[in-house]
Amino acid sequence: MDGLNCVIPDSERVIFDSNIEEKYLSDTLGRLRGRAEALVFPESTKEVSDIMKYAFEHGIPVTPRGAGTNLVGSTVPADGGIVLDLSRMNRVLEIDKETFTATVEPGVVLEDFQKLVESEGLFYPPDPGEKTATIGGNISTNAGGMRAVKYGVTRDYVRGLEVVLADGSVAELGGKVVKDSSGLSLKHLMIGSEGTLGIITKAIVKLTVKPQTSLSVLLPFDDLHTGIRAVLNVIRGNLDPTAIEFVEKKVVNLGEEYVGLSFPYKDAQAYILLTFDGDDTEEIYKRVEKLKAVAEESGAKDVLLLEDQKTIDAVWKIRGALVKAVEAKSEQEPVDIVVPINKSAEFIEYINRLEQETGVQMVSFGHAGDGNVHLCVVRGSRTQEQWEEDRRKVLAFAYDKSSELGGLTSGEHGIGLSKKKYLKKATDPLNLQMMKQVKLSLDPKNILNANKIFD
Amino acid sequence: MDGLNCVIPDSERVIFDSNIEEKYLSDTLGRLRGRAEALVFPESTKEVSDIMKYAFEHGIPVTPRGAGTNLVGSTVPADGGIVLDLSRMNRVLEIDKETFTATVEPGVVLEDFQKLVESEGLFYPPDPGEKTATIGGNISTNAGGMRAVKYGVTRDYVRGLEVVLADGSVAELGGKVVKDSSGLSLKHLMIGSEGTLGIITKAIVKLTVKPQTSLSVLLPFDDLHTGIRAVLNVIRGNLDPTAIEFVEKKVVNLGEEYVGLSFPYKDAQAYILLTFDGDDTEEIYKRVEKLKAVAEESGAKDVLLLEDQKTIDAVWKIRGALVKAVEAKSEQEPVDIVVPINKSAEFIEYINRLEQETGVQMVSFGHAGDGNVHLCVVRGSRTQEQWEEDRRKVLAFAYDKSSELGGLTSGEHGIGLSKKKYLKKATDPLNLQMMKQVKLSLDPKNILNANKIFD
Ligand SMILES: Cc1cc2nc3c(=O)[nH]c(=O)nc-3n(C[C@H](O)[C@H](O)[C@H](O)COP(=O)(O)OP(=O)(O)OC[C@H]3O[C@@H](n4cnc5c(N)ncnc54)[C@H](O)[C@@H]3O)c2cc1C
Ligand SMILES: Cc1cc2nc3c(=O)[nH]c(=O)nc-3n(C[C@H](O)[C@H](O)[C@H](O)COP(=O)(O)OP(=O)(O)OC[C@H]3O[C@@H](n4cnc5c(N)ncnc54)[C@H](O)[C@@H]3O)c2cc1C
Repeated sequence: MDGLNCVIPDSERVIFDSNIEEKYLSDTLGRLRGRAEALVFPESTKEVSDIMKYAFEHGIPVTPRGAGTNLVGSTVPADGGIVLDLSRMNRVLEIDKETFTATVEPGVVLEDFQKLVESEGLFYPPDPGEKTATIGGNISTNAGGMRAVKYGVTRDYVRGLEVVLADGSVAELGGKVVKDSSGLSLKHLMIGSEGTLGIITKAIVKLTVKPQTSLSVLLPFDDLHTGIRAVLNVIRGNLDPTAIEFVEKKVVNLGEEYVGLSFPYKDAQAYILLTFDGDDTEEIYKRVEKLKAVAEESGAKDVLLLEDQKTIDAVWKIRGALVKAVEAKSEQEPVDIVVPINKSAEFIEYINRLEQETGVQMVSFGHAGDGNVHLCVVRGSRTQEQWEEDRRKVLAFAYDKSSELGGLTSGEHGIGLSKKKYLKKATDPLNLQMMKQVKLSLDPKNILNANKIFD
Repeated sequence: MDGLNCVIPDSERVIFDSNIEEKYLSDTLGRLRGRAEALVFPESTKEVSDIMKYAFEHGIPVTPRGAGTNLVGSTVPADGGIVLDLSRMNRVLEIDKETFTATVEPGVVLEDFQKLVESEGLFYPPDPGEKTATIGGNISTNAGGMRAVKYGVTRDYVRGLEVVLADGSVAELGGKVVKDSSGLSLKHLMIGSEGTLGIITKAIVKLTVKPQTSLSVLLPFDDLHTGIRAVLNVIRGNLDPTAIEFVEKKVVNLGEEYVGLSFPYKDAQAYILLTFDGDDTEEIYKRVEKLKAVAEESGAKDVLLLEDQKTIDAVWKIRGALVKAVEAKSEQEPVDIVVPINKSAEFIEYINRLEQETGVQMVSFGHAGDGNVHLCVVRGSRTQEQWEEDRRKVLAFAYDKSSELGGLTSGEHGIGLSKKKYLKKATDPLNLQMMKQVKLSLDPKNILNANKIFD
């Protein structure tokens, strides 16, 4: 690997072997750990290209990395080789107010980017929970988040990509244009490919105009089933909500304890939390009036407009801290199953039954508006062996149920290493075969994030 | 090819050689003509699969066909073989009001489908001009249309696909779920692939709730430049228009003559035509009030709300008939260039200058809201030889200008046969190489719509 010193003659940006910090060998959970001979921090497309040429020539595995906040082991360098950290390529190259696009390097941090564009009166709608993630990582996982109900996911905001391929060649895909029927969509193939097809070195993303106001509404219910069914009525009512989240009382309690704040309306077993945004407060209130009618018909115990800043903060802080609240108590395995929206209730009820039957705690919450159920399977005080056995058992049940309901393995986190076996089980071998063929057609030496998604 | 009689033992659905009607050997323009040894009308996925197995085994080229309304020669069976016409697979299998999806066979005609879902209070937003096209054709070309400004293109409405691959195997991609980060997105790769990667035999498409009302507004301008610049201000104003179309006076005249109706507000050189939709008339009028302010600041001569049904019909009939109005006078070559929205004005002015300099009439109009400029290059009374020379010349200039402005070869019609050379010129050879590699990874014998998009 010494040759890397010639490719990037800056010893501060090329780290070898035992000098590599452990966090670069894992994901945000830190449970799966790989090994690497080199960790490199390129600062330009040219450097990325040179590194890939070197790796290609020598058949060295390369694991691209953004902020490493993924939950599925997709940044674990399982086969050794080079970890390619894009975090220093973090410049916003242009904000183009005429085409409503921004051109960014992949290492730009989501939170910084959102703030920057909002300071210009613009808006980048994709909003996954972890704001320290990079735009390159978001694109590579097709990240979702809270605002997907109204605005869609990261894929919907990618106009163009610059990608370095396995052999170091640099491809430009798409552009600033809005529409594109100019041949096979390589751009869409790259989105969500978890670093297995190319290294994103630049992205042109779509912006919108920042909505001037937003309003959060909390609907308490006697049980989750009624709550989740109410979501279908809300969607049918065409009320254009930005977010529709669900959370059960028992989960709220965890969050309250963790952040030291409290949820309004105690006397409920489940909550649906909605936001609405727009430019015209009156118009938003009109939609909320309609929501009231729908909510009442659908069995909501109340319709709470969150107008007091303290309450708003408390509710969203609690919702935002749920994963961390679980993790503060115990190791957990995050699950990101997505089912058709009308099957969410059935799926979550199944999970609750499974919890009772197996004694394995499973905390569920998530994006009710798009059927994306986040589960934390909680280790508790289990020994490693017991944990592995119990986890394997309940996950097999959960993924099987999801398949039965027409669901998929991942709604937004991706497959990486940890969900490979579940993807394999849930997916027709033909699909996996097609993925492999496509992968090898663009990365014939199989050096780019090899062994992720499929074997 | 006799073996096809065993694959589909129904002589009415398997037509050979000289019994094949000429229209099946071309596209809607009828200028490029291929040859075929067999024309087959399958009625099920099983039959499509059996045909592909047969074709794969014998290395026979297969050209999939929907309604044949494409404008780029993409249904021309250039290498002979089998034309696979999907138009009899035209059942709407399910309208699922809980997941807001419909499951359809590929031959369902767009117009029929739109009517059907609207009769149920639902809405299928993609709305390309040619309503006799099939949903399978729309997906295979990633069709756009008038409503793309607000609602996006066909790609944005495809949830799941059933696809028969070159060797006859049947793949299920995506599903009823809203989000998907479960491996490489083969579904998105298939969308817009013009029948080169697989035969779509079923599609799950996303529906929305039908907006209850809509309003058209006409803005007259003294010149096109001012009009197109106004569009940027409209977009910046966040007024959420459904459609933003532009048309020049000289083009309107053609349309008026053709349909025998007349446009309001004669004293203008260019028009911007907008629609707004929603559930709440008052709210729409509020947006139109804002539009008034923006339009005035941007130099519109007036803001005409089209409230009288006769005027509305006249305006949209004229807009809808422009291609046919041109064709009634002369053969024409349709161009579907897309440029960044802030470059539309420059591009159209360039085209107008080119028209003057070369004497080749070029009628331009189109989707101002997304930079998708439709040009008709008009043959007039030219001899075949002269026409070919002039057409080649002006198209080379037009596509070069588009490239210079960061544009792409096709915004919505696709590449097919006729735009291949322009795609080749405008595209980095690396991209085309990647497309070929991906194509061959899924269709190793190169039998599926071979020689389309790239050589
Ligand atoms: C508390 C918490 C909440 C979260 N909430 C959400 C949520 O709401 N929605 C959601 O979708 N996700 C969520 N995530 C998951 C995670 O934040 C996302 O997957 C994020 O998109 C990862 O970005 P990253 O920069 O950290 O990428 P990394 O974790 O570094 O990498 C992710 C994948 O992308 C690849 N990659 C990264 N950069 C590039 C590049 N430039 N070119 C090619 N490949 C690259 C990597 O190889 C890897 O396969 C959450 C995570 C945490 C810890
Ligand atoms: C007057 C007029 C106006 C038009 N306006 C618009 C417009 O506004 N926007 C727009 O986008 N287009 C427009 N078009 C172009 C055309 O209507 C679209 O391209 C349409 O999507 C084609 O659908 P089709 O069923 O006719 O497909 P075809 O023309 O039969 O086929 C088109 C391509 O798709 C492939 N294909 C068809 N069905 C399948 C299948 N089931 N599986 C795999 N491949 C398949 C074919 O091989 C071919 O490559 C217009 C055309 C006309 C004549």
